Amino acid sequence: MGGERAPDEIVKGAAQISLTTDIDCLLVGDEDRVQAVLEQQEYNPERISLVDCRNAVGMDEDPAAAAGRRDTSLTVALQAVKAGGADALVSAGNTAACVLASTRVWRLVPGVRRAALAAVYPRHREYPEQDPLALVLDVGASLRCDALDLVEFAVMGSAYARRISKVESPRVGLLNVDRDPRAGDDMLIEAHRLLAAEPGLNFVGNVEGHDLVRGGADVIVCEGLVGNVARKLFEGVSGVMLDVARAAGEHRLMWRLGLRLLSEGIERLQALTDYSNYGGAPILGFDRVFIKCHGRSNAHAVANAIKVAAKAVRDDVTGEITAVMAKRRR
Amino acid sequence: MGGERAPDEIVKGAAQISLTTDIDCLLVGDEDRVQAVLEQQEYNPERISLVDCRNAVGMDEDPAAAAGRRDTSLTVALQAVKAGGADALVSAGNTAACVLASTRVWRLVPGVRRAALAAVYPRHREYPEQDPLALVLDVGASLRCDALDLVEFAVMGSAYARRISKVESPRVGLLNVDRDPRAGDDMLIEAHRLLAAEPGLNFVGNVEGHDLVRGGADVIVCEGLVGNVARKLFEGVSGVMLDVARAAGEHRLMWRLGLRLLSEGIERLQALTDYSNYGGAPILGFDRVFIKCHGRSNAHAVANAIKVAAKAVRDDVTGEITAVMAKRRR
Repeated sequence: MGGERAPDEIVKGAAQISLTTDIDCLLVGDEDRVQAVLEQQEYNPERISLVDCRNAVGMDEDPAAAAGRRDTSLTVALQAVKAGGADALVSAGNTAACVLASTRVWRLVPGVRRAALAAVYPRHREYPEQDPLALVLDVGASLRCDALDLVEFAVMGSAYARRISKVESPRVGLLNVDRDPRAGDDMLIEAHRLLAAEPGLNFVGNVEGHDLVRGGADVIVCEGLVGNVARKLFEGVSGVMLDVARAAGEHRLMWRLGLRLLSEGIERLQALTDYSNYGGAPILGFDRVFIKCHGRSNAHAVANAIKVAAKAVRDDVTGEITAVMAKRRR
Repeated sequence: MGGERAPDEIVKGAAQISLTTDIDCLLVGDEDRVQAVLEQQEYNPERISLVDCRNAVGMDEDPAAAAGRRDTSLTVALQAVKAGGADALVSAGNTAACVLASTRVWRLVPGVRRAALAAVYPRHREYPEQDPLALVLDVGASLRCDALDLVEFAVMGSAYARRISKVESPRVGLLNVDRDPRAGDDMLIEAHRLLAAEPGLNFVGNVEGHDLVRGGADVIVCEGLVGNVARKLFEGVSGVMLDVARAAGEHRLMWRLGLRLLSEGIERLQALTDYSNYGGAPILGFDRVFIKCHGRSNAHAVANAIKVAAKAVRDDVTGEITAVMAKRRR
């Protein structure tokens, strides 16, 4: 029931998935409304079941207060996953409420002090087979962090990239103002030192804002405040670029012709900048899989998020994180 | 002598300015090297003079140590401005060294506790006559800030925008993770409260990462760490977009044709994303004008930075900042 287009687009996404994959969806929400949307879709009834829940986290509700309520679709869904009724949770709801409610219902993996919200984003491919998506965390679960938090984010992000992007040894970068190891404040200098000393981590040093898209690292760690602003700025810039291209097409006949000839390229540019193609990004650190999708997610985005969640379960991302955290504690 | 292309591109930029404007340039640097470049340019010798200085801040030098040296072209130039030999300073050198050396040689405007490095960047124009450039500060002079620092940045940024962009009442936004006034950590919540209460400030509330390009604010304040990452990410994304457009043109005949037809639009896109067109951005808070240009600045960028510096002097930006800070203290 969370997100700007719930329940319609969420339900439509699940309906699509039921027809094209072997994934089962448990929809938690207002049964009447969910059923009403479902009835207008083609879907495979054997793959979709419903849990009725009349309350939801409000868009303007205080996240901390909302996370404490036991009657929301969010908390009911978290409980369902905890009880084994589902293997992963997908939500387009309020991000802060998602993180806080998970903390109340689920458990952190032993050794993890704070959960991190990751974001996947497209970057310049350095070689043809490279996963075009890179991971940045945290992007909003922990606005301020200490050096140890960033090390844990690096360990969890590496585990995720290893399993999901199939990179043997993911390169980890620390987002900073300069590549110089002495750059940043005391916290960032300390984080650099700890990351370099962490066994099993392929730390490539500090990276700067432009490296987020230029490549050079598969996993980039930062405080949630910085990561959140960077993620949204990326979406904003991409959007403006496309607006400029489109406006050019409207104004002049030659430009219109050019745009038509370029349409395949423009579509590729759009695909690269359209978050709905990535589906969602994981909240890492809990003993269960949580894929958070964008609040504006449409059915296509929701369907992709459900696929990402299934992949994370099948590739046992949580098991990998639990294993590396256990190794760290020995 | 600072920046990746010094002294060649710096000198060429000054030579261009000497032919096309009534601005006088005082070049501080290694006389032999500067003279050698000058001799290969067309320039107006009445508008260019030289101060010989054999030492410079090294690219890999520790900024704090470099700022303490009295024999660098940076410190000699700061002293020259302080003594009245010039009205403003333009440099493409190490940013941290520029800020730290200014703190040693110049004075902060009474009431200003910390200087701020601003950046100008293009945004979506909301109406035809709007200045396409917006101001964000700090982008690297003060990595961590308290709420009062952000209020001072807002006051200084507004004064700059009022004079340079001719906006009567510049809209000020606070960069945060959400528009909700309760968003962020304690510092950001306090900054929101103080900004809303500050007389003479047109505070429009919290803005998010995408608002940096989407518009809605003329001046955006944030901590230096966040601002630095955002500024560089913006440059990076713009670059990748153009790469994608160019790569499309290389691969297919139809795309090449399309790109040719679109060339005017592409050029406009390039102009929008090319920092060399903006010249430079001010370091605000000192009793003199300092325009910092990008380390990779070419002659075109340097010439534009010199024009920005002259405009800041003629429009008395420093006087405006001094006046508003004095009013605040009463």
